[in-house]
Amino acid sequence: MTGDQLAAVFEPIVGVEWIRRDPAALLAYGTDALKKGCPADLVVIPADTQEIAAIARQCHARGVPLVVRGAGTGYTGGAVPVRGGVVLSLERLNRILEIDEENLLAVVEPNVITGHLQRAVERVGLFYPPDPASLNESVIGGNVAECAGGPRAFKYGTTKRYVLGLEVVLPTGEVVRTGSKAVKNVVGYDLTQLIVGSEGTLAVVTKVILRLIPKPPVQITLRASFADVHGAVRAVTELIRRRVVPATLELIDGESLAAVTRYLGTGLAPPDTGAVLLVEVDGLASGVLEEAARVEEACRVAGTTELLRADDTAAREDLWRIRRELSHSLRTIAGLKINHDVVVPRGRVPELFDLIAGLRDEYDLTIPCFGHAGDGNIHVNIMLDPDDAPALSRARTAERRLFEGVVALEGSITGEHGIGFAKAPFIGIELSDDVIALMKRVKAAFDPNGILNPGKMFP
Amino acid sequence: MTGDQLAAVFEPIVGVEWIRRDPAALLAYGTDALKKGCPADLVVIPADTQEIAAIARQCHARGVPLVVRGAGTGYTGGAVPVRGGVVLSLERLNRILEIDEENLLAVVEPNVITGHLQRAVERVGLFYPPDPASLNESVIGGNVAECAGGPRAFKYGTTKRYVLGLEVVLPTGEVVRTGSKAVKNVVGYDLTQLIVGSEGTLAVVTKVILRLIPKPPVQITLRASFADVHGAVRAVTELIRRRVVPATLELIDGESLAAVTRYLGTGLAPPDTGAVLLVEVDGLASGVLEEAARVEEACRVAGTTELLRADDTAAREDLWRIRRELSHSLRTIAGLKINHDVVVPRGRVPELFDLIAGLRDEYDLTIPCFGHAGDGNIHVNIMLDPDDAPALSRARTAERRLFEGVVALEGSITGEHGIGFAKAPFIGIELSDDVIALMKRVKAAFDPNGILNPGKMFP
Repeated sequence: MTGDQLAAVFEPIVGVEWIRRDPAALLAYGTDALKKGCPADLVVIPADTQEIAAIARQCHARGVPLVVRGAGTGYTGGAVPVRGGVVLSLERLNRILEIDEENLLAVVEPNVITGHLQRAVERVGLFYPPDPASLNESVIGGNVAECAGGPRAFKYGTTKRYVLGLEVVLPTGEVVRTGSKAVKNVVGYDLTQLIVGSEGTLAVVTKVILRLIPKPPVQITLRASFADVHGAVRAVTELIRRRVVPATLELIDGESLAAVTRYLGTGLAPPDTGAVLLVEVDGLASGVLEEAARVEEACRVAGTTELLRADDTAAREDLWRIRRELSHSLRTIAGLKINHDVVVPRGRVPELFDLIAGLRDEYDLTIPCFGHAGDGNIHVNIMLDPDDAPALSRARTAERRLFEGVVALEGSITGEHGIGFAKAPFIGIELSDDVIALMKRVKAAFDPNGILNPGKMFP
Repeated sequence: MTGDQLAAVFEPIVGVEWIRRDPAALLAYGTDALKKGCPADLVVIPADTQEIAAIARQCHARGVPLVVRGAGTGYTGGAVPVRGGVVLSLERLNRILEIDEENLLAVVEPNVITGHLQRAVERVGLFYPPDPASLNESVIGGNVAECAGGPRAFKYGTTKRYVLGLEVVLPTGEVVRTGSKAVKNVVGYDLTQLIVGSEGTLAVVTKVILRLIPKPPVQITLRASFADVHGAVRAVTELIRRRVVPATLELIDGESLAAVTRYLGTGLAPPDTGAVLLVEVDGLASGVLEEAARVEEACRVAGTTELLRADDTAAREDLWRIRRELSHSLRTIAGLKINHDVVVPRGRVPELFDLIAGLRDEYDLTIPCFGHAGDGNIHVNIMLDPDDAPALSRARTAERRLFEGVVALEGSITGEHGIGFAKAPFIGIELSDDVIALMKRVKAAFDPNGILNPGKMFP
């Protein structure tokens, strides 16, 4: 259908003022943080669930691709209309409907910015733990679609652990509720958890019931430097052996530190530091002191070369600075960042770093790494000059070897960003043909006409 | 197919010594803790995944119902072959394959008894939290099929939070793996979480990768008596307000206490006690002391009439005795127990108890209640003389009113036991027709011929 024909179908539903048709908007709404956009044929900005249901019914009946967009902060192109069609922006569904202190839950519309929700619940002493790096731009609906993680996932788990129930519009137009406000619910299949992480391919999320927990009153941050990545990983192992569960356990490797040093013109860690571990323990004051002492012991046993500790907000922020400056720093060292988020069982992180070191040497690439050592979830950034075709070709080979390597290490090719269309060619490295066929049958159970976010996840 | 015909198909797969055909075995293998069994047409006891796959392929090709059995401890008839066919007992798949201390995980076959696994991991300082009351008989595979809960779910969550990955045989015979040993994995749809709680209707679980956590070194148990249930619930609210998350928060109502007193011939709580709260806090020693103090404060503010506290194992067991004697006591007060496990948002527990009090009066029934107050998950036991037909009829009406009531309170008709065939007639009270239709399409995506555990979950 042409843009005119589409507009004629969807204008009556949302009103002409909530349709976008100019080329700049069509491309902007068709581009996310992957920065490989496709223009939409039409952008619709519905007011509520009923309008969304009407839009879905039209797309279903007419076979028009329907791509849902939250904040567009995804790294794998999940919100990109690769087959054209209608982009449905949820920007008007942005209210926190309820913060229920008694029941420790919140009910929100999908386009509430994650950081806004966190601050709102923290004002009443509650806590929504998932903390993707994008939390000040990304929205709950997108976090649900991708099952967002973040540093605190080691102790607190990812988004899925906090989603109790959903209101969704099915691609066939029905409005259904899954789960409930009860924290336990074993009635029928767990459609809630199936939809979390389904990358906008199964249903349009229009309301989310989120579980909250009491806010941990006290935090202590520790930063430990090591001669190399293996020392830092040894500290993680020692810490697990001491049965400490920190809220965060972030690792930053030598190439990442070098980038930060170059960017700031000064080193934040001692010279000859090959890896830094950022550890945060939280909870009641007394328990936190005990945990911090155990973390320090673990780092010393593992041979830390510098061990810093902070308990007030300003000093803690100062220790975190090395991590916060990281993304900016990487941007300055090369024009293109091929950004992966592989994950292995925690104990195999040393083998993962050995694998990456091998790729660096063999393919002559700069690959700064950092990430969530507690989860074994490491952000692997292949840094390139986008005009250097031979390097790009070497990077593509290295990327495939990386994915094959993490699967051989009993890990997964993505722990946070999802598949989208960027990683769809690689899904067969991890999943068997039988599993992919089963997933496609599940997709068809939701979306018989295949209109919702087509061209994603599967090759 | 006749028993002879079935035997001819399945004997070559498992060997004649692993087939059961005598009437007593056919009925025993067709009966679970619901105690409303149906005889199987044949019982097969395979040795491994490959034999299970071969059995599934035969059932799929021939349209023979296939019902998987673990320990048979379910309360809703999940393991009962209501349409006859083959019962597949997993009893030979009972090994703990791996306890991986470094990665905090275990790999087990489905018929490992939950309590055995718990003791095995606790010996190395680790912890598998889900603790259904049946834990010394029920098995991990059954816990996965039903998404088992237990008292510790308030702090630690139910079975689903601990399942990282599965090996399953699909009803069509393929062996597939879902999830992985990595604690984060967002590759494709979360089939793992879809299969957890699917009551043996989607796939045969043949291997489970479980996440473990460090064992909390210290526990303190508190027991607080109250004049009535509302006092006990007020204490829970006060405790949430103080941002304490106890490991368990068990409530026992007056009728339950009366049963225990009659059974033991002596009261364990002060006279005129209308409700008892059993609270357990755990963690590092220092934090636990602080939490226990907050629990005591909350109970005092709520008007506790007796407050006891214990920190060594024997004294803690003594406080728990009132709860441990409960099931035995109930068995002595009536021949039939209609046993439900409804759940409401925690703050609505008082309304739930008001609802139950109304049903007691209106239908002249004895309904002792106890359960997991922190989760709002209350075991509601309608106690009857099985030969009293009018009372049974009143109980059936009260049961439906209970389910309608919890759904009106934004709760769910089952928080732990699942639907099976016992609750299938009631699923429409909670789920819309559209959701049920969607779930049936998901079922068909796994099991196009509908051979796996037919007659369950849906009316």
